Amino acid sequence: MVKHIGAILTAATLLATGCAGDKSAAPKAGGSGGDSLESIMAARNLTPDDAAAALKTFVPSGRIDDYLMFASGGHSGQVFVIGLPSMRILRSIAVFTPEPWQGYGYGVGEEILKAGYANGREIKWGDTHHPGLSETAGDYDGQFLFINDKANARMAVIDLRDFETKQIVKNPIAINDHGGAFVTPNTDYVIEGGQYSTPLGWTYAPIADYEKSYRGMVTLWKFDRAAGRIDMKKSFAIELPPYWQDLFDAGKLASDGWIFGNSINTEMATGGIEEGKPPFEAGVSQRDVDYLHIINLKAAEAAYLAGKTKMVNGFPVIPLDVAAKEGILFFAPEPKSPHGCDVTPNGKYIVVAGKLDPHVSVYSFEKIQTTIAAKKWTPDPFGVPILDQDSVIEARVELGLGPLHTQFDDKGYAYTSLFLDTAVARWTLGGEYADKHPEPPWTLVTKTPTQYNIGHLAAAEGDTVSPDGKYVVALNKWSVDRFFPTGPLLPQNLQLLDIGATGTTMPVIYDGAMGVGEPHYAQIIKADKLKPWTVYPEVGWSPQTQSKDPKAPVAGGEKIVRNGNRVDVYMTAIRSHYNPEHVEVKKGDHVFWHITSLERTQDATHGFAIPGYNINLSLEPGETETVEFVADRSGTYPYYCTEFCSALHLEMTGIFLVKP
Amino acid sequence: MVKHIGAILTAATLLATGCAGDKSAAPKAGGSGGDSLESIMAARNLTPDDAAAALKTFVPSGRIDDYLMFASGGHSGQVFVIGLPSMRILRSIAVFTPEPWQGYGYGVGEEILKAGYANGREIKWGDTHHPGLSETAGDYDGQFLFINDKANARMAVIDLRDFETKQIVKNPIAINDHGGAFVTPNTDYVIEGGQYSTPLGWTYAPIADYEKSYRGMVTLWKFDRAAGRIDMKKSFAIELPPYWQDLFDAGKLASDGWIFGNSINTEMATGGIEEGKPPFEAGVSQRDVDYLHIINLKAAEAAYLAGKTKMVNGFPVIPLDVAAKEGILFFAPEPKSPHGCDVTPNGKYIVVAGKLDPHVSVYSFEKIQTTIAAKKWTPDPFGVPILDQDSVIEARVELGLGPLHTQFDDKGYAYTSLFLDTAVARWTLGGEYADKHPEPPWTLVTKTPTQYNIGHLAAAEGDTVSPDGKYVVALNKWSVDRFFPTGPLLPQNLQLLDIGATGTTMPVIYDGAMGVGEPHYAQIIKADKLKPWTVYPEVGWSPQTQSKDPKAPVAGGEKIVRNGNRVDVYMTAIRSHYNPEHVEVKKGDHVFWHITSLERTQDATHGFAIPGYNINLSLEPGETETVEFVADRSGTYPYYCTEFCSALHLEMTGIFLVKP
Repeated sequence: MVKHIGAILTAATLLATGCAGDKSAAPKAGGSGGDSLESIMAARNLTPDDAAAALKTFVPSGRIDDYLMFASGGHSGQVFVIGLPSMRILRSIAVFTPEPWQGYGYGVGEEILKAGYANGREIKWGDTHHPGLSETAGDYDGQFLFINDKANARMAVIDLRDFETKQIVKNPIAINDHGGAFVTPNTDYVIEGGQYSTPLGWTYAPIADYEKSYRGMVTLWKFDRAAGRIDMKKSFAIELPPYWQDLFDAGKLASDGWIFGNSINTEMATGGIEEGKPPFEAGVSQRDVDYLHIINLKAAEAAYLAGKTKMVNGFPVIPLDVAAKEGILFFAPEPKSPHGCDVTPNGKYIVVAGKLDPHVSVYSFEKIQTTIAAKKWTPDPFGVPILDQDSVIEARVELGLGPLHTQFDDKGYAYTSLFLDTAVARWTLGGEYADKHPEPPWTLVTKTPTQYNIGHLAAAEGDTVSPDGKYVVALNKWSVDRFFPTGPLLPQNLQLLDIGATGTTMPVIYDGAMGVGEPHYAQIIKADKLKPWTVYPEVGWSPQTQSKDPKAPVAGGEKIVRNGNRVDVYMTAIRSHYNPEHVEVKKGDHVFWHITSLERTQDATHGFAIPGYNINLSLEPGETETVEFVADRSGTYPYYCTEFCSALHLEMTGIFLVKP
Repeated sequence: MVKHIGAILTAATLLATGCAGDKSAAPKAGGSGGDSLESIMAARNLTPDDAAAALKTFVPSGRIDDYLMFASGGHSGQVFVIGLPSMRILRSIAVFTPEPWQGYGYGVGEEILKAGYANGREIKWGDTHHPGLSETAGDYDGQFLFINDKANARMAVIDLRDFETKQIVKNPIAINDHGGAFVTPNTDYVIEGGQYSTPLGWTYAPIADYEKSYRGMVTLWKFDRAAGRIDMKKSFAIELPPYWQDLFDAGKLASDGWIFGNSINTEMATGGIEEGKPPFEAGVSQRDVDYLHIINLKAAEAAYLAGKTKMVNGFPVIPLDVAAKEGILFFAPEPKSPHGCDVTPNGKYIVVAGKLDPHVSVYSFEKIQTTIAAKKWTPDPFGVPILDQDSVIEARVELGLGPLHTQFDDKGYAYTSLFLDTAVARWTLGGEYADKHPEPPWTLVTKTPTQYNIGHLAAAEGDTVSPDGKYVVALNKWSVDRFFPTGPLLPQNLQLLDIGATGTTMPVIYDGAMGVGEPHYAQIIKADKLKPWTVYPEVGWSPQTQSKDPKAPVAGGEKIVRNGNRVDVYMTAIRSHYNPEHVEVKKGDHVFWHITSLERTQDATHGFAIPGYNINLSLEPGETETVEFVADRSGTYPYYCTEFCSALHLEMTGIFLVKP
């Protein structure tokens, strides 16, 4: 045996040392390693443009990103938080899909997920589409985030103090949606528009009865900001014709109190390729126009409050004939296969892109009001007034092939994604914006190709009353040759564009690989608008109630209490042990395992996993949680901390015994 | 109605145009936008070191990364593929946790997941720890990846042709592990070592019987490369004392045929803080030494083949006394609370880091053999020979506080993570490596701080027989102030170090945020060693069998077949429609829904979601899959494509009717 080697540390020393390094001693990156910039550029074959892009996007160690992008995860069912300009994925937020590393759906969060089940059938994923940041006076306020699930017509609420999902509501009348989440300027309502029409309540009806029995919808979820929850009891929906409603946007400033949505399939095609009928892809696109939906939200709210609703699956719905007759719902023709529907920052214009029309069509809210007042309309087959198109359109701007979505900057420019051109178009707004840019109003300025096939795009605060400019992110749907191929399933390519300059200068400066989901839409907020908690405010904090849980286990109060076959474990966790370290129950016992993290240090997260029992928690500093399960398998199960918390992390364990 | 506006495209035109942009027209990034590098540096307050780091890590649009890092996802249960030097997350690979965007565990992949259940109990997450790339002659060959689940003692096999999980095996004798996956030099075996000892088979035994009834283990999974599967029938385990085995590594070249593992808790502490006993964190670290496990794999294999095993839960285990007596198992003392165990590229040395000892201890394989031959040992309480420590140690190198893991480069340097120092240490190897570097052998050269508290580290091909040098990635456990705080739960910080130079030059050049899991360990492979498929080889390809499925639906053969209450749907998918578009069944029908993607274009992935039924597939070009479910809820469910596949993606839908 060799002699004792040098200064061997004791466990006690390690505990006292704690975990995170001394920040004051944090070194500079020293990234050059003695190499000149020119030599690095030569060695790596970088052009001056490449180097400029690198310098515009690099965030040095110790500095943080200026903007946060909240991107939906598409059919991952999550939300992703991405830093700009670095394009680093800072965090996924588990919403509709259980995610064990953040302790969601593996022992806790079950009641949130269960509230989203479809008539009792377990649903453990979602197709998240459009994140909606809460707004105050039409500007992001950094408090909440809403996100819809297209696949199952659900809406979720995320609290941006702890970046956790607090609520999922299942839409009782629809089984799929698309046009959500979009908030009204003070977040009074969260809008969820439908997509594929079904019988309301998604009950059975033969396809032959489509026009009679299938319906579209838009749901207005009332948000209770103080409670941080959607109030289902104050929410309602509006029945719409069985077109496919697509995207919605809330009016703001000039158009506050109104909402706007586009639609496709006013043909009411029902497919049937297998019977020789036109497939949906052809049947849906036969007509030259579909209908912009123009909804007087104040009038709708009044009708709801006046009880002019019918109940569908227990949910109040303003019937289509009421909406048509009482000045709630109007249409305006929009060419062709519309997809985007975006209100300008001043609220005066609504921009609609028809993906089979090379133009965007710009509607004037003022002209819409005039046309409504003049009753210059004809009814559609369901009695909804169709406003005269020439009377409500302000401008048409030819951009290119496959225009989809539009965002805005601080210089009077609009940015529209072109799917088939695979490009971002910059064009000029008119009206009060005409003086902000050197080019003539309502004119294409330039197009920047993207790789490849852009769907949505997001500009910094680009759908608020006060866009920031600076950046646009192209959410491309195909990446093909942009990254090393990860098998036949490739990442998406989120490309960052520098929109700081005017005119034709609008370079792509970063290709951001997105290999953990397919972000559909995103919003970009100035990071300093968010005020997240770094640790929970008090020890014993319940993230479910966002308050201290008086029943939370406390230091010194650890115990195991048996009552019949119910066993309550009151446990605490702190670096680097659980208390208790031994828990023994009998097979069949119903276990309620309560745990409080006693930590007060930022980033001192602990996990808690029970092998064989599908349980894993993530306990942030101060958090308390309860896991409930039946000990239905006997044996010896070492529970342990799954988050690497200290040098003695491996020793943070205990033994769970289930006696046969 | 306005007149027809410009050149309105038809759906047919769009379909012909297809999706991806014309690659030949792909523009240059043009990242400068007219700004000089100096002006960008000034505007963004970048130092020359910052700029150098930016230029070393930026990968321009249209270029791909040089290396791929396969990182475990920790308690996300996944594997992440990260490009170097850009540090972009190119893809998650769903392994133990269902992930809907890649269609794993939401209708397909169920049988793979089920094979990993614990005695029939559903387990839908994992704590992935150590990815192991398949090797040929000790070098990564880019064919397969193995990954363990610490929480439930499981091993998974990923095929790197399509980056998909093909197999999960549940260890029948252990309920948790740690020391896996590590492969032998030709991938004959995949090593899975235990962690917290339990009764083998994790049956119930009182804690008081710890020394008698609890046992450690190491399992040798036999890999059938041709089948691409672990062959459970040719696999076996070795019973070990009830210490906590920690990490293993396979010998190579000089030490081929042997495996090595470290251990802690040779104290056999059992905790019990709630009864006033020493908690694990203290009890486990009382002794000055624990034991390096030295295992003669060839001798073990011979004993297994000779039937010198006992069956535990149906699995053959070489009993501890057989291992101790037959020259299979030896120990060597290792100070103190060991954590790393890494064999040098030439196979001649084993480097052990004791996290409570500021040194790394370097063991000589040659000296181990000499000492064994000389029988210079004393037995441990279980009869295992403990080799004389002075006789087997080649060198001890003082590095700093909390040394954990060691990797190697092409210049005779070793790199060790220091958890408490939060630094990477570079030190010199001796022996045949002494001439490769200017410094004296077995000497600390430099330390680079990392932010903060590094666990594992990974060097480019740094645990193979021929490391590449160039890069080290520090897998830091705490990030604290490195990123904008995403609530109390923060991302990890994977920092990239440039190790291209010699001596004291070793800068951090990138902070890679990791907000989708906690990577525990990673391996870095030269990208061009992988030969992934870009589309599946033939239409009708089953990823489960990696062969064409003769029963796969074919174009023109779409149909719906009823047989009693069984309904088989034979569907095809291609941009932008399913065939059929109408499927009607009766409530209670047992549905087998077969789908083939007819696509042959790279990146032309389709999804397939049925709302309300928790089903979502990802169908890569050529893929065929079958989803089985009971139509237990009546109603109208529009199925649709969840992957944005074309301009007419929204139209890729159909109606699933379940008649009451």
